[in-house]
Amino acid sequence: VSVTAPRGFLAAGVACGIKASGTPDLALVVVGERSGSGGARATPAPAAAVFTTNKAAAAPVQVSRRHLATSAGRAGAVVLSSGNANAATGAQGLAVAERMCELVAVSVEGLSPEQVLVCSTGLIGIPLPLAPLEAGIPAVARALGEGPEAGEAAARAILTTDTRTKQACVERPSFTVGAMAKGAAMLAPNLATMLAVVTTDAAGSPAELAEALSSAVADSFNSLTVDGCCSTNDTVVLLSSGAAGPVGRSELAAAVGEVCADLAAQMAADAEGATRVARVTVEGAASTEEARRAARRVAESQLVQCSLHGGDPYWGRVVSELGSAGVAFELDRVRVLYGGVVVCDGGVAVSLDPAAAARLEAHMSGPRVELVAHLGLGEGRASVLTTDLGPGYIAENMRTS
Amino acid sequence: VSVTAPRGFLAAGVACGIKASGTPDLALVVVGERSGSGGARATPAPAAAVFTTNKAAAAPVQVSRRHLATSAGRAGAVVLSSGNANAATGAQGLAVAERMCELVAVSVEGLSPEQVLVCSTGLIGIPLPLAPLEAGIPAVARALGEGPEAGEAAARAILTTDTRTKQACVERPSFTVGAMAKGAAMLAPNLATMLAVVTTDAAGSPAELAEALSSAVADSFNSLTVDGCCSTNDTVVLLSSGAAGPVGRSELAAAVGEVCADLAAQMAADAEGATRVARVTVEGAASTEEARRAARRVAESQLVQCSLHGGDPYWGRVVSELGSAGVAFELDRVRVLYGGVVVCDGGVAVSLDPAAAARLEAHMSGPRVELVAHLGLGEGRASVLTTDLGPGYIAENMRTS
Repeated sequence: VSVTAPRGFLAAGVACGIKASGTPDLALVVVGERSGSGGARATPAPAAAVFTTNKAAAAPVQVSRRHLATSAGRAGAVVLSSGNANAATGAQGLAVAERMCELVAVSVEGLSPEQVLVCSTGLIGIPLPLAPLEAGIPAVARALGEGPEAGEAAARAILTTDTRTKQACVERPSFTVGAMAKGAAMLAPNLATMLAVVTTDAAGSPAELAEALSSAVADSFNSLTVDGCCSTNDTVVLLSSGAAGPVGRSELAAAVGEVCADLAAQMAADAEGATRVARVTVEGAASTEEARRAARRVAESQLVQCSLHGGDPYWGRVVSELGSAGVAFELDRVRVLYGGVVVCDGGVAVSLDPAAAARLEAHMSGPRVELVAHLGLGEGRASVLTTDLGPGYIAENMRTS
Repeated sequence: VSVTAPRGFLAAGVACGIKASGTPDLALVVVGERSGSGGARATPAPAAAVFTTNKAAAAPVQVSRRHLATSAGRAGAVVLSSGNANAATGAQGLAVAERMCELVAVSVEGLSPEQVLVCSTGLIGIPLPLAPLEAGIPAVARALGEGPEAGEAAARAILTTDTRTKQACVERPSFTVGAMAKGAAMLAPNLATMLAVVTTDAAGSPAELAEALSSAVADSFNSLTVDGCCSTNDTVVLLSSGAAGPVGRSELAAAVGEVCADLAAQMAADAEGATRVARVTVEGAASTEEARRAARRVAESQLVQCSLHGGDPYWGRVVSELGSAGVAFELDRVRVLYGGVVVCDGGVAVSLDPAAAARLEAHMSGPRVELVAHLGLGEGRASVLTTDLGPGYIAENMRTS
């Protein structure tokens, strides 16, 4: 159920020594097959990617962008390292990212360095040493394999503070989409790196793949991270082997959207230190754009997140965030619901009967909170996933060493 | 050293029963003097105020705005209650806020209700009961007095989760400015109510007072709260008795600016659960506006705040926030300093000698962190105060009851 689920993909994950812990930290995904000699042969094919919009984009992001442009949207492999983001590492960092692609090109047949994409995730501002990669990349190339175990090994090797692998797969009668991702830390506001590799055996042009990926990202990862992807390293790659032949554009987009949504939900559930996931939905906004902005404002609020941690349906903070979200807002039209229980109507508190109060309490103490704010102004509607803010998040993030 | 420091002001604070704890929760500041009968007589005079821009503005904000407009910028008293924000309380909340002003007008001579301003702070969405105020406002009016003790009593009665009163005073040869404030919770992002009453014996027109107050607020409270004042109840009032006669505009503005900056620093130091205050300064930005936006982005970052809690000079998160702040940014021009120690130069890590490393560690473990990011692009410069994010903040905010 991962990047190796579609036909025409190989994957592997190994420990090469970037992480001091000795856990897996290097993954490789190849469009291609095992070659007779025991190695692997890549077949570069159309690909697409979405990168962070952060102006401090890490070296691997810069290199991958350039490679995708140089190759006119074709790629045969993605190499991913974890434990060090290779961000804010200057010219030396760029050289390391380029060298990673060269090492893949010499370790796998049929590839030029420009047909290799590269991703890294981990701490920012620390030079990424080349030595582990010089030995590690040939090793991970030798380990390339098919099937679920190979996909699982790759998915494991990209994790940082994640507590479990994130993999997804959608099977259609005529084609398959598989995917793996890493991403943790508080989701909104978010600076944790989000990496995802999506694979499919459906054939499509680079433009068709880009279109499918961009709509999938908007509805999934961008609805849980704020301001698009704002970490230095965020990257989502879509590779296609074409083994299943061409499929309908909308069919492909829908399947890619499904795996991305599945990964996004897994990322939310595994957010650093989170004990609770909340879906914040704003309805009745003046426009979809305003609904999205308002939902993000609420989802980003440290105070709302603290209330979620305490299981406290404190809707006052919700209306206060809505009132300062820069969207059309009239307090006396606002209705707020937690788990379907109306706690605020017409902008004022609702008295709950004992049955409703019990339903509310049960909902708030559960692992998943549904928070809906209806603005009563229009048809705009959007949802954003977020998590609670508890001591676990702080413990995870207060020291890097 | 408070609202009663300038000539021509009375103040008082009492417990009227809004707070279940029985601690003081009702304050009154009057422009005027004790009258012969043992009561107080107000002398309405020019006043100015800055209110929240939140569209969910609380009832007292709406009423105070209206009163100041109706009275053409003249006021004789401010009544302030704590423990309940009277926000998201509908028509009933507006009636309570209006009634509070009427009660002041009948309890103090020389006032019409429109010459009374009203502020409340506390929980949102809970009806503010009138009964404690019906008895409490006449009582606080009877308690009105001059001198530091009266000012202290008023300053104490407006606190919520604050751990200490915030008072300030600037004495000039020809006039005096005094002030009290309440404000706590994490400062950026902030939804905690910020209330301040500034008093002066300098005479000035409503327009002159408004000008002085607005520049003072921009340089003080708005540099620690984000998005201007965004809580439902934020209010800063400037009252003038005129007892010291007219003074130069810029002289008055400077003195009001000083007391506001003093209060802002006290609020930062007393932020909920904070163990450390940080001043984030962005220099070398393309413009002052971009410097301010970038500094706020860094100051608001939960991850930066977590690092501050851990005393970790993790500048990688700083450049990542700067890169996504929507300002002109070139990573290879960036320099980051903590406590004057350069940790990042030209966008990459700086190796520290043992002496510098020791200075850095000492600075990071202290109560006040100076974080400077130089963008190397222009002359824009701005500072924002923020605090660390630790378990204390969460403990304070996870449950309202």
